[in-house]
Amino acid sequence: MKSSIKIGQLGCGIVGSAAVRMLHANADDIARRLGVNVGYHSIAVRNIGKERDLPEGYAAMLTTDPAAVVNDPEVDVIVEVMGGIEPTRTLLLDAIANGKSIVTANKELLATLGQELFDAADRAGVDIYYEAAVGGGIPLIRPLKEGLAGERITRFMGIVNGTTNYILTLMDEDGLDFGEALALAEQLGYTELDPTADIEGFDAAAKAAILASIAFNTRVVAGDVYREGISKLRADDIAFAKRLGYTVKLLAIAEDMGDEIAVRVHPAMVPLEHPLASVRENLNAVFVEGERVGELMFYGRGAGGGPTGTSIVGDVLTVARNLVTGGRGPGCTCTLTKKVRSIDANEAQHYLLLEVADEPGVLAAVATAFSDNAVSIKSVWQEGHGNDAQLVLITHRARESAFQDTLKAVRALKGVREVASVLRVEGSEA
Amino acid sequence: MKSSIKIGQLGCGIVGSAAVRMLHANADDIARRLGVNVGYHSIAVRNIGKERDLPEGYAAMLTTDPAAVVNDPEVDVIVEVMGGIEPTRTLLLDAIANGKSIVTANKELLATLGQELFDAADRAGVDIYYEAAVGGGIPLIRPLKEGLAGERITRFMGIVNGTTNYILTLMDEDGLDFGEALALAEQLGYTELDPTADIEGFDAAAKAAILASIAFNTRVVAGDVYREGISKLRADDIAFAKRLGYTVKLLAIAEDMGDEIAVRVHPAMVPLEHPLASVRENLNAVFVEGERVGELMFYGRGAGGGPTGTSIVGDVLTVARNLVTGGRGPGCTCTLTKKVRSIDANEAQHYLLLEVADEPGVLAAVATAFSDNAVSIKSVWQEGHGNDAQLVLITHRARESAFQDTLKAVRALKGVREVASVLRVEGSEA
Repeated sequence: MKSSIKIGQLGCGIVGSAAVRMLHANADDIARRLGVNVGYHSIAVRNIGKERDLPEGYAAMLTTDPAAVVNDPEVDVIVEVMGGIEPTRTLLLDAIANGKSIVTANKELLATLGQELFDAADRAGVDIYYEAAVGGGIPLIRPLKEGLAGERITRFMGIVNGTTNYILTLMDEDGLDFGEALALAEQLGYTELDPTADIEGFDAAAKAAILASIAFNTRVVAGDVYREGISKLRADDIAFAKRLGYTVKLLAIAEDMGDEIAVRVHPAMVPLEHPLASVRENLNAVFVEGERVGELMFYGRGAGGGPTGTSIVGDVLTVARNLVTGGRGPGCTCTLTKKVRSIDANEAQHYLLLEVADEPGVLAAVATAFSDNAVSIKSVWQEGHGNDAQLVLITHRARESAFQDTLKAVRALKGVREVASVLRVEGSEA
Repeated sequence: MKSSIKIGQLGCGIVGSAAVRMLHANADDIARRLGVNVGYHSIAVRNIGKERDLPEGYAAMLTTDPAAVVNDPEVDVIVEVMGGIEPTRTLLLDAIANGKSIVTANKELLATLGQELFDAADRAGVDIYYEAAVGGGIPLIRPLKEGLAGERITRFMGIVNGTTNYILTLMDEDGLDFGEALALAEQLGYTELDPTADIEGFDAAAKAAILASIAFNTRVVAGDVYREGISKLRADDIAFAKRLGYTVKLLAIAEDMGDEIAVRVHPAMVPLEHPLASVRENLNAVFVEGERVGELMFYGRGAGGGPTGTSIVGDVLTVARNLVTGGRGPGCTCTLTKKVRSIDANEAQHYLLLEVADEPGVLAAVATAFSDNAVSIKSVWQEGHGNDAQLVLITHRARESAFQDTLKAVRALKGVREVASVLRVEGSEA
């Protein structure tokens, strides 16, 4: 039995230094609970001279040689917060081959090459924990993987990107358009230097892939996830949504259809009474439905040093306990191989905003285009502005391909000046 | 290494039979994931002849001798869903002494004699898991105990009793008074035969004790928890709460004050914008605040066979994995001994509804009684009805003892006919 557990960390930015401070501050309590000391041994960084908020004595652990950390026989656990695909992948594979367990926050790597890492870990008999990779401080991965291990999860819908949720909150509550809201979010420090990964849904898609892999026990990679971002949303859409009793959220949605699964990320109108509708600002939440457990929701801070550091420390302590007791976590749970269904086969309700001529026959022509394609209209709302009018429609659930055919037909209509917006509606019709 | 894991179950009511069905249905999947079979061996019940929804073949496992189950060397894990203190306690202690791990839903036993069981389990080196004891299907115990192991939780507020939340939802949304709402809840099957444990807050107090023990790493028993139920709530209170921007919930609240902790269960006004305010019907949710992780909320179905059975099966699979790998769960985490503070030292905002004479000087006298006791008034609202009036006050945060002195002074005032209601206000002022 080990008398102490030593951590080697790759990276030491906001999240990494928060984890260091937290483990340092709780060292006595942790030792009391686990019966062994858990502490840092070495920390690999790119630039040793950079200002960091670390407790006294930790500066001496810094090194610019990550390979030395993963190959150090003294190190038991690797905490990976450097991000990116390479050289991170190679370093982690080396660490695993050296018998070290891994705690990582790297959603990008897990959502693309996760299988390779999990296979290597299974061969080496070590743990990979990654609670910090999705939902920051929200306990989510382990509840899905362990607490709900015996349940058949049928569906989840999540707000998993804080930046876009902050932008959408500004659009909803202050009536800003997308550009104004993005500028304000940038000013307030809620965005990355390059906001593309957030606003175009790449970040959410990686998280959707990770969650779907766990929920449905089948490997999903980021590239499998259908993806639309929020940059085309108009202030009008949000205003109409509000009037109709909805709010707009960027959702990561996944469904188990038996032999196939569906995974997608796109903005959607959500009924105001749905628990996800009240998730404001940069908070995250994942709404989960299971065959027996019914509905669950996990809510909290999806980013930031404190929340994400908390998840990392929780994982480190579990790995440490496994090392002490000789146990091991669940490992890879992707025992099935289900196909990811094409978006064309998806069924959803849709919202449409059409700019039309305010003259007789337009509504009839639009309605005919819908019925010709067997897409049923749930509600309609027309509002005139001089010679022009806005026509808002919400459909019943229809297959994506039928809906796209309808759209094509509507665009070709003489009285329709523009299909200004199209949005899926989620969380109401079953 | 074991080639199969055998379960002995004590009790087989709604939750117990749901767990049996779920493990039976997922047997293949579980074997694939764990590498061993996990199945039932024997099930002790009071009445073998009772109608039960069990898969074919399970009737033969039923026995009326629970001692035989806990002493059977073939049995690896005991699932306890019989409830109550004795003979359950003795049976579980025997099972632990025989080296069997325990999965239990028994909040009453854990909240009174938990320490004895955990000590015995630590001595025997076996696991006790109890996700099903609080919050039914919501993963809550293990996220607090494991995922947040490195975090200092400062406070939680939870809706942990579905029956009372259902009654309060009826009062709020349909304007029913308590008696009408209780009668309707009884009609709809949302209550126990004797509803006292629910409506007087005993059930919530047991759950508060269990959660506080985990959150603050110090043993709290049900008897430590200050407790008020919802039976004295009036339709007027709920209506006033609504007008003032609040809803009324029965809350289990606990706070870490450093050397001491506070734990209490009582109805409280919660601002409508608080995430707990939108938890409707018989749903449960626990809102958690931590020093670094910020705010978290766990939401879902707090009762019923499916949800509670899901938590039991999740625990069984973790115990099974520990048996396979030779690992062990975290065991008792109550490494500290903090005192539970008296309710007199509590600080809270209060709502008061006074029936007063509609004549000059009454408001002045009431306001003086408050200022004499250094309790500051945040808002006041008076409404006349002929010679009488209703006076509604909300205070700023004040110490319970000062508030009680104020109440005494107000009751003695000539113009005050009755202090009709007093409610704490939670979730707004820090």
